[in-house]
Amino acid sequence: MRDRILETAEKLFWRYGVKSVTMDDMARELGISKKTIYQHFADKDAIINEVVGMELSCERSDISQLEIEAQNPVDEMLQASRYLSKELASMNPVLLYDLKKYYPKAWNLFQAHKQQHMMKSIRRNLEQGIALELYRPDLNVEILSRLRLEQVEMAFDPSIFPPSRFSMIDVQMEFLHHFLRGLLTEKGFQLYNHYLEQSAIEPNNP
Amino acid sequence: MRDRILETAEKLFWRYGVKSVTMDDMARELGISKKTIYQHFADKDAIINEVVGMELSCERSDISQLEIEAQNPVDEMLQASRYLSKELASMNPVLLYDLKKYYPKAWNLFQAHKQQHMMKSIRRNLEQGIALELYRPDLNVEILSRLRLEQVEMAFDPSIFPPSRFSMIDVQMEFLHHFLRGLLTEKGFQLYNHYLEQSAIEPNNP
Repeated sequence: MRDRILETAEKLFWRYGVKSVTMDDMARELGISKKTIYQHFADKDAIINEVVGMELSCERSDISQLEIEAQNPVDEMLQASRYLSKELASMNPVLLYDLKKYYPKAWNLFQAHKQQHMMKSIRRNLEQGIALELYRPDLNVEILSRLRLEQVEMAFDPSIFPPSRFSMIDVQMEFLHHFLRGLLTEKGFQLYNHYLEQSAIEPNNP
Repeated sequence: MRDRILETAEKLFWRYGVKSVTMDDMARELGISKKTIYQHFADKDAIINEVVGMELSCERSDISQLEIEAQNPVDEMLQASRYLSKELASMNPVLLYDLKKYYPKAWNLFQAHKQQHMMKSIRRNLEQGIALELYRPDLNVEILSRLRLEQVEMAFDPSIFPPSRFSMIDVQMEFLHHFLRGLLTEKGFQLYNHYLEQSAIEPNNP
Protein backbone atom coordinates (compact mmCIF):
# COMPACT_ATOMS: atom_id res chain seq x y z
CA MET A 1 0.00 0.00 0.00
CA ARG A 2 2.83 2.39 0.89
CA ASP A 3 4.34 1.95 -2.57
CA ARG A 4 0.98 2.36 -4.28
CA ILE A 5 0.45 5.64 -2.44
CA LEU A 6 3.86 6.92 -3.52
CA GLU A 7 3.35 5.87 -7.13
CA THR A 8 -0.03 7.52 -7.31
CA ALA A 9 1.22 10.68 -5.63
CA GLU A 10 4.08 10.86 -8.11
CA LYS A 11 1.72 10.45 -11.03
CA LEU A 12 -0.57 13.22 -9.74
CA PHE A 13 2.30 15.61 -8.90
CA TRP A 14 3.77 15.06 -12.35
CA ARG A 15 0.48 15.86 -14.01
CA TYR A 16 -0.82 18.75 -11.88
CA GLY A 17 2.16 20.05 -9.90
CA VAL A 18 2.45 19.64 -6.13
CA LYS A 19 0.51 22.53 -4.67
CA SER A 20 -2.85 21.75 -6.24
CA VAL A 21 -2.92 18.03 -5.35
CA THR A 22 -4.62 17.40 -1.98
CA MET A 23 -4.69 14.34 0.26
CA ASP A 24 -8.34 13.98 -0.82
CA ASP A 25 -7.26 13.84 -4.47
CA MET A 26 -4.78 11.08 -3.67
CA ALA A 27 -7.33 9.08 -1.66
CA ARG A 28 -9.88 9.40 -4.46
CA GLU A 29 -7.39 8.37 -7.15
CA LEU A 30 -6.33 5.36 -5.04
CA GLY A 31 -9.92 4.42 -4.14
CA ILE A 32 -9.00 4.35 -0.42
CA SER A 33 -9.75 6.53 2.58
CA LYS A 34 -7.55 9.41 3.71
CA LYS A 35 -7.20 7.52 7.02
CA THR A 36 -5.35 4.73 5.20
CA ILE A 37 -2.89 7.26 3.72
CA TYR A 38 -2.29 8.74 7.18
CA GLN A 39 -1.44 5.25 8.50
CA HIS A 40 1.61 5.37 6.21
CA PHE A 41 2.52 9.06 6.06
CA ALA A 42 2.33 11.81 8.67
CA ASP A 43 1.28 14.44 6.14
CA LYS A 44 1.50 15.57 2.52
CA ASP A 45 5.02 16.94 3.11
CA ALA A 46 6.22 13.45 4.07
CA ILE A 47 4.83 12.06 0.82
CA ILE A 48 6.38 14.85 -1.23
CA ASN A 49 9.82 14.40 0.34
CA GLU A 50 9.74 10.67 -0.32
CA VAL A 51 8.53 11.05 -3.91
CA VAL A 52 11.19 13.67 -4.69
CA GLY A 53 13.90 11.55 -3.00
CA MET A 54 12.90 8.49 -5.05
CA GLU A 55 12.70 10.47 -8.27
CA LEU A 56 16.17 11.93 -7.75
CA SER A 57 17.83 8.61 -6.91
CA CYS A 58 16.14 7.09 -9.95
CA GLU A 59 17.53 9.91 -12.09
CA ARG A 60 21.00 9.38 -10.61
CA SER A 61 20.93 5.73 -11.54
CA ASP A 62 19.68 6.45 -15.09
CA ILE A 63 22.35 9.10 -15.61
CA SER A 64 25.14 6.80 -14.32
CA GLN A 65 23.95 4.15 -16.76
CA LEU A 66 23.94 6.68 -19.56
CA GLU A 67 27.47 7.82 -18.66
CA ILE A 68 28.70 4.24 -18.91
CA GLU A 69 27.00 3.56 -22.21
CA ALA A 70 27.90 6.82 -23.94
CA GLN A 71 30.69 6.56 -26.51
CA ASN A 72 32.09 10.01 -25.78
CA PRO A 73 31.12 13.32 -24.14
CA VAL A 74 29.22 14.59 -27.21
CA ASP A 75 27.21 11.37 -27.41
CA GLU A 76 26.60 11.58 -23.66
CA MET A 77 25.25 15.11 -23.91
CA LEU A 78 22.93 14.14 -26.77
CA GLN A 79 21.74 11.04 -24.94
CA ALA A 80 21.14 13.14 -21.84
CA SER A 81 19.04 15.50 -23.97
CA ARG A 82 16.87 12.57 -25.15
CA TYR A 83 16.57 11.31 -21.58
CA LEU A 84 15.60 14.76 -20.34
CA SER A 85 12.99 15.28 -23.03
CA LYS A 86 11.45 11.85 -22.34
CA GLU A 87 11.37 12.57 -18.59
CA LEU A 88 9.86 16.00 -19.03
CA ALA A 89 7.36 15.13 -21.74
CA SER A 90 4.61 14.33 -19.27
CA MET A 91 5.66 16.76 -16.55
CA ASN A 92 3.75 19.87 -15.56
CA PRO A 93 6.36 22.67 -15.57
CA VAL A 94 4.79 24.13 -12.42
CA LEU A 95 6.15 21.18 -10.41
CA LEU A 96 9.64 22.51 -9.75
CA TYR A 97 8.30 25.98 -9.13
CA ASP A 98 5.81 24.63 -6.57
CA LEU A 99 8.64 22.91 -4.71
CA LYS A 100 10.75 26.04 -4.70
CA LYS A 101 7.91 28.19 -3.41
CA TYR A 102 6.02 25.97 -1.02
CA TYR A 103 8.06 22.89 -0.06
CA PRO A 104 11.52 24.00 1.07
CA LYS A 105 12.58 20.57 2.32
CA ALA A 106 11.90 18.85 -1.01
CA TRP A 107 13.44 21.84 -2.79
CA ASN A 108 16.59 21.40 -0.72
CA LEU A 109 16.77 17.76 -1.80
CA PHE A 110 16.70 18.93 -5.39
CA GLN A 111 19.31 21.63 -4.72
CA ALA A 112 21.65 19.11 -3.07
CA HIS A 113 21.20 16.76 -6.02
CA LYS A 114 21.98 19.63 -8.37
CA GLN A 115 25.06 20.84 -6.50
CA GLN A 116 26.51 17.37 -5.98
CA HIS A 117 25.49 14.92 -8.68
CA MET A 118 24.50 17.10 -11.62
CA MET A 119 27.48 19.40 -11.08
CA LYS A 120 29.90 16.47 -10.93
CA SER A 121 28.43 14.89 -14.03
CA ILE A 122 28.59 18.09 -16.09
CA ARG A 123 32.08 18.94 -14.90
CA ARG A 124 33.34 15.46 -15.79
CA ASN A 125 31.70 15.69 -19.21
CA LEU A 126 33.43 19.03 -19.89
CA GLU A 127 36.82 17.82 -18.71
CA GLN A 128 36.61 14.64 -20.75
CA GLY A 129 35.51 16.58 -23.83
CA ILE A 130 38.51 18.89 -23.51
CA ALA A 131 40.88 15.93 -23.02
CA LEU A 132 39.52 14.29 -26.20
CA GLU A 133 39.80 17.60 -28.10
CA LEU A 134 36.06 17.56 -28.78
CA TYR A 135 35.60 20.70 -26.70
CA ARG A 136 37.73 23.86 -26.81
CA PRO A 137 40.83 23.71 -24.64
CA ASP A 138 40.19 27.20 -23.26
CA LEU A 139 36.73 26.48 -21.79
CA ASN A 140 36.32 27.61 -18.21
CA VAL A 141 34.89 24.42 -16.70
CA GLU A 142 33.85 26.02 -13.40
CA ILE A 143 31.91 28.81 -15.06
CA LEU A 144 30.27 26.77 -17.81
CA SER A 145 29.22 23.87 -15.57
CA ARG A 146 27.39 26.40 -13.38
CA LEU A 147 25.81 27.97 -16.44
CA ARG A 148 24.53 24.60 -17.60
CA LEU A 149 23.05 23.76 -14.19
CA GLU A 150 21.24 27.09 -14.03
CA GLN A 151 19.92 26.66 -17.56
CA VAL A 152 18.09 23.48 -16.63
CA GLU A 153 16.34 25.37 -13.83
CA MET A 154 15.78 28.54 -15.86
CA ALA A 155 13.67 26.60 -18.36
CA PHE A 156 11.19 25.94 -15.53
CA ASP A 157 10.89 29.60 -14.52
CA PRO A 158 7.42 30.81 -15.51
CA SER A 159 8.46 34.46 -15.22
CA ILE A 160 11.04 33.94 -18.00
CA PHE A 161 9.28 31.25 -20.03
CA PRO A 162 5.52 31.49 -19.43
CA PRO A 163 4.03 28.02 -20.09
CA SER A 164 1.32 29.65 -22.22
CA ARG A 165 3.97 30.78 -24.72
CA PHE A 166 6.74 28.19 -24.42
CA SER A 167 6.93 24.43 -24.29
CA MET A 168 9.42 23.52 -21.58
CA ILE A 169 10.89 20.73 -23.68
CA ASP A 170 11.51 23.11 -26.58
CA VAL A 171 13.33 25.44 -24.17
CA GLN A 172 15.39 22.61 -22.66
CA MET A 173 16.34 21.23 -26.09
CA GLU A 174 17.22 24.65 -27.48
CA PHE A 175 19.39 25.29 -24.39
CA LEU A 176 21.14 21.94 -24.56
CA HIS A 177 22.01 22.07 -28.25
CA HIS A 178 23.11 25.69 -28.00
CA PHE A 179 25.19 24.89 -24.91
CA LEU A 180 26.85 21.91 -26.59
CA ARG A 181 27.59 23.78 -29.82
CA GLY A 182 29.22 26.55 -27.82
CA LEU A 183 31.76 24.01 -26.50
CA LEU A 184 32.78 22.22 -29.68
CA THR A 185 36.05 22.24 -31.57
CA GLU A 186 36.04 21.49 -35.30
CA LYS A 187 36.60 17.82 -34.49
CA GLY A 188 33.73 17.98 -32.00
CA PHE A 189 31.45 19.53 -34.62
CA GLN A 190 32.11 16.70 -37.04
CA LEU A 191 31.07 14.18 -34.41
CA TYR A 192 28.04 16.26 -33.39
CA ASN A 193 26.84 16.59 -36.98
CA HIS A 194 27.39 12.87 -37.50
CA TYR A 195 25.13 12.05 -34.53
CA LEU A 196 22.46 14.50 -35.69
CA GLU A 197 22.41 12.92 -39.16
CA GLN A 198 22.20 9.48 -37.61
CA SER A 199 19.28 10.39 -35.38
CA ALA A 200 17.52 12.07 -38.32
CA ILE A 201 17.33 8.73 -40.16
CA GLU A 202 16.15 6.84 -37.08
CA PRO A 203 12.47 7.78 -36.96
CA ASN A 204 12.05 6.99 -33.27
CA ASN A 205 14.99 9.12 -32.16
CA PRO A 206 14.18 12.74 -32.88
CA MET B 1 25.75 71.00 -7.25
CA ARG B 2 22.96 68.59 -8.21
CA ASP B 3 25.14 67.08 -10.94
CA ARG B 4 28.15 66.86 -8.63
CA ILE B 5 26.07 64.97 -6.07
CA LEU B 6 24.86 62.52 -8.73
CA GLU B 7 28.36 61.98 -10.12
CA THR B 8 29.81 61.34 -6.70
CA ALA B 9 26.95 59.02 -5.72
CA GLU B 10 27.46 57.04 -8.91
CA LYS B 11 31.18 56.72 -8.24
CA LEU B 12 30.57 55.51 -4.68
CA PHE B 13 27.79 53.07 -5.68
CA TRP B 14 29.98 51.66 -8.41
CA ARG B 15 32.82 51.10 -5.99
CA TYR B 16 30.99 49.88 -2.87
CA GLY B 17 27.50 48.87 -4.00
CA VAL B 18 24.38 50.78 -3.01
CA LYS B 19 23.41 49.45 0.40
CA SER B 20 26.62 50.29 2.21
CA VAL B 21 26.91 53.89 0.98
CA THR B 22 25.20 56.35 3.35
CA MET B 23 24.19 60.00 2.92
CA ASP B 24 27.04 60.76 5.35
CA ASP B 25 29.52 59.00 3.04
CA MET B 26 28.32 61.10 0.13
CA ALA B 27 28.49 64.36 2.08
CA ARG B 28 32.02 63.52 3.28
CA GLU B 29 33.20 62.59 -0.24
CA LEU B 30 31.73 65.83 -1.62
CA GLY B 31 33.07 67.94 1.25
CA ILE B 32 29.60 69.39 1.85
CA SER B 33 26.94 69.04 4.56
CA LYS B 34 24.11 66.48 4.40
CA LYS B 35 21.74 69.44 4.53
CA THR B 36 22.99 70.59 1.13
CA ILE B 37 22.30 67.14 -0.32
CA TYR B 38 18.77 67.22 1.09
CA GLN B 39 18.19 70.56 -0.61
CA HIS B 40 18.47 68.71 -3.92
CA PHE B 41 17.16 65.22 -3.12
CA ALA B 42 14.40 64.04 -0.79
CA ASP B 43 16.31 60.93 0.25
CA LYS B 44 18.86 58.30 -0.79
CA ASP B 45 16.23 56.50 -2.86
CA ALA B 46 15.73 59.59 -5.01
CA ILE B 47 19.48 59.74 -5.68
CA ILE B 48 19.62 56.04 -6.51
CA ASN B 49 16.71 56.22 -8.94
CA GLU B 50 18.24 59.16 -10.72
CA VAL B 51 21.70 57.57 -10.91
CA VAL B 52 20.30 54.29 -12.23
CA GLY B 53 18.09 56.11 -14.75
CA MET B 54 21.06 58.14 -16.03
CA GLU B 55 23.28 55.08 -16.20
CA LEU B 56 20.71 53.14 -18.22
CA SER B 57 20.05 55.93 -20.68
CA CYS B 58 23.78 56.35 -21.12
CA GLU B 59 24.08 52.63 -21.83
CA ARG B 60 21.23 52.82 -24.35
CA SER B 61 22.97 55.58 -26.22
CA ASP B 62 26.34 53.72 -26.21
CA ILE B 63 24.70 50.52 -27.45
CA SER B 64 22.81 52.33 -30.23
CA GLN B 65 26.09 53.87 -31.34
CA LEU B 66 27.74 50.46 -31.28
CA GLU B 67 24.89 48.95 -33.33
CA ILE B 68 25.37 51.61 -35.99
CA GLU B 69 29.13 51.20 -36.13
CA ALA B 70 29.26 47.38 -36.08
CA GLN B 71 30.03 45.77 -39.44
CA ASN B 72 27.80 42.75 -38.81
CA PRO B 73 26.09 40.88 -35.95
CA VAL B 74 29.25 38.94 -34.97
CA ASP B 75 31.27 42.14 -34.82
CA GLU B 76 28.45 43.77 -32.84
CA MET B 77 28.43 40.96 -30.27
CA LEU B 78 32.22 41.16 -29.86
CA GLN B 79 32.14 44.94 -29.57
CA ALA B 80 29.35 44.64 -27.00
CA SER B 81 31.56 42.23 -25.04
CA ARG B 82 34.38 44.79 -25.00
CA TYR B 83 31.96 47.50 -23.97
CA LEU B 84 30.54 45.32 -21.20
CA SER B 85 33.94 44.40 -19.84
CA LYS B 86 35.03 48.05 -19.83
CA GLU B 87 31.84 49.10 -18.05
CA LEU B 88 32.09 46.35 -15.47
CA ALA B 89 35.82 46.55 -14.82
CA SER B 90 35.42 49.04 -12.00
CA MET B 91 32.01 47.87 -10.78
CA ASN B 92 31.37 46.13 -7.48
CA PRO B 93 29.32 43.04 -8.40
CA VAL B 94 27.18 43.58 -5.30
CA LEU B 95 25.60 46.63 -6.95
CA LEU B 96 22.91 44.86 -8.98
CA TYR B 97 22.19 42.51 -6.13
CA ASP B 98 21.71 45.44 -3.74
CA LEU B 99 19.20 47.00 -6.11
CA LYS B 100 17.27 43.76 -6.45
CA LYS B 101 17.13 43.21 -2.73
CA TYR B 102 16.71 46.68 -1.26
CA TYR B 103 15.71 49.19 -3.91
CA PRO B 104 12.70 47.84 -5.84
CA LYS B 105 12.04 51.07 -7.74
CA ALA B 106 15.56 51.26 -9.17
CA TRP B 107 15.47 47.51 -9.79
CA ASN B 108 12.26 47.98 -11.81
CA LEU B 109 14.01 50.60 -13.94
CA PHE B 110 16.68 48.02 -14.71
CA GLN B 111 14.09 45.32 -15.42
CA ALA B 112 12.19 47.60 -17.80
CA HIS B 113 15.45 48.44 -19.57
CA LYS B 114 16.23 44.74 -19.83
CA GLN B 115 12.81 43.71 -21.12
CA GLN B 116 12.53 46.54 -23.62
CA HIS B 117 15.89 47.74 -24.86
CA MET B 118 18.24 44.84 -24.20
CA MET B 119 15.69 42.30 -25.43
CA LYS B 120 15.07 44.27 -28.64
CA SER B 121 18.79 44.66 -29.26
CA ILE B 122 19.55 40.95 -28.79
CA ARG B 123 16.56 39.84 -30.82
CA ARG B 124 17.56 42.12 -33.70
CA ASN B 125 21.13 40.84 -33.53
CA LEU B 126 19.94 37.22 -33.75
CA GLU B 127 17.53 37.91 -36.62
CA GLN B 128 20.14 39.80 -38.58
CA GLY B 129 22.72 37.05 -37.99
CA ILE B 130 20.32 34.43 -39.32
CA ALA B 131 19.47 36.58 -42.36
CA LEU B 132 23.19 36.95 -43.15
CA GLU B 133 23.76 33.21 -42.64
CA LEU B 134 26.25 33.91 -39.86
CA TYR B 135 23.94 32.24 -37.33
CA ARG B 136 22.13 28.93 -37.72
CA PRO B 137 18.79 29.19 -39.53
CA ASP B 138 17.08 26.95 -36.95
CA LEU B 139 17.85 29.11 -33.89
CA ASN B 140 14.84 29.82 -31.73
CA VAL B 141 15.19 33.60 -31.39
CA GLU B 142 12.58 33.95 -28.62
CA ILE B 143 14.22 31.31 -26.42
CA LEU B 144 17.83 32.31 -26.99
CA SER B 145 17.29 36.04 -26.57
CA ARG B 146 15.78 35.31 -23.14
CA LEU B 147 18.70 33.03 -22.30
CA ARG B 148 21.17 35.78 -23.17
CA LEU B 149 19.35 38.37 -21.06
CA GLU B 150 19.28 36.05 -18.06
CA GLN B 151 22.96 35.21 -18.48
CA VAL B 152 23.98 38.84 -18.04
CA GLU B 153 22.08 38.89 -14.73
CA MET B 154 23.19 35.41 -13.64
CA ALA B 155 26.82 36.53 -13.68
CA PHE B 156 25.94 38.99 -10.89
CA ASP B 157 24.31 36.36 -8.67
CA PRO B 158 26.59 35.79 -5.67
CA SER B 159 24.87 32.49 -4.81
CA ILE B 160 25.96 31.06 -8.19
CA PHE B 161 29.23 32.96 -8.69
CA PRO B 162 30.59 34.00 -5.28
CA PRO B 163 32.80 37.08 -5.82
CA SER B 164 35.50 35.44 -3.69
CA ARG B 165 35.91 32.69 -6.30
CA PHE B 166 34.91 34.33 -9.58
CA SER B 167 35.70 37.57 -11.33
CA MET B 168 32.45 38.88 -12.74
CA ILE B 169 34.14 39.99 -15.95
CA ASP B 170 35.55 36.50 -16.50
CA VAL B 171 32.06 35.08 -16.08
CA GLN B 172 30.50 37.63 -18.45
CA MET B 173 33.19 37.09 -21.10
CA GLU B 174 32.98 33.29 -20.86
CA PHE B 175 29.19 33.53 -21.18
CA LEU B 176 29.30 35.88 -24.13
CA HIS B 177 31.84 33.94 -26.18
CA HIS B 178 30.13 30.64 -25.41
CA PHE B 179 26.74 32.15 -26.31
CA LEU B 180 28.04 33.54 -29.59
CA ARG B 181 29.81 30.31 -30.59
CA GLY B 182 26.61 28.37 -29.98
CA LEU B 183 24.89 30.49 -32.66
CA LEU B 184 27.44 30.38 -35.45
CA THR B 185 27.30 28.68 -38.84
CA GLU B 186 30.56 27.71 -40.54
CA LYS B 187 30.58 31.04 -42.32
CA GLY B 188 29.95 32.73 -38.97
CA PHE B 189 32.86 30.86 -37.40
CA GLN B 190 35.25 32.08 -40.09
CA LEU B 191 34.28 35.65 -39.35
CA TYR B 192 34.45 35.10 -35.57
CA ASN B 193 37.93 33.57 -35.80
CA HIS B 194 39.04 36.38 -38.08
CA TYR B 195 37.98 38.98 -35.48
CA LEU B 196 39.66 37.06 -32.66
CA GLU B 197 42.94 36.91 -34.59
CA GLN B 198 42.66 40.60 -35.36
CA SER B 199 42.09 41.55 -31.73
CA ALA B 200 44.98 39.29 -30.65
CA ILE B 201 47.41 41.44 -32.64
CA GLU B 202 45.96 44.73 -31.38
CA PRO B 203 47.51 44.99 -27.93
CA ASN B 204 44.89 47.42 -26.60
CA ASN B 205 41.91 45.31 -27.62
CA PRO B 206 41.98 42.10 -25.59
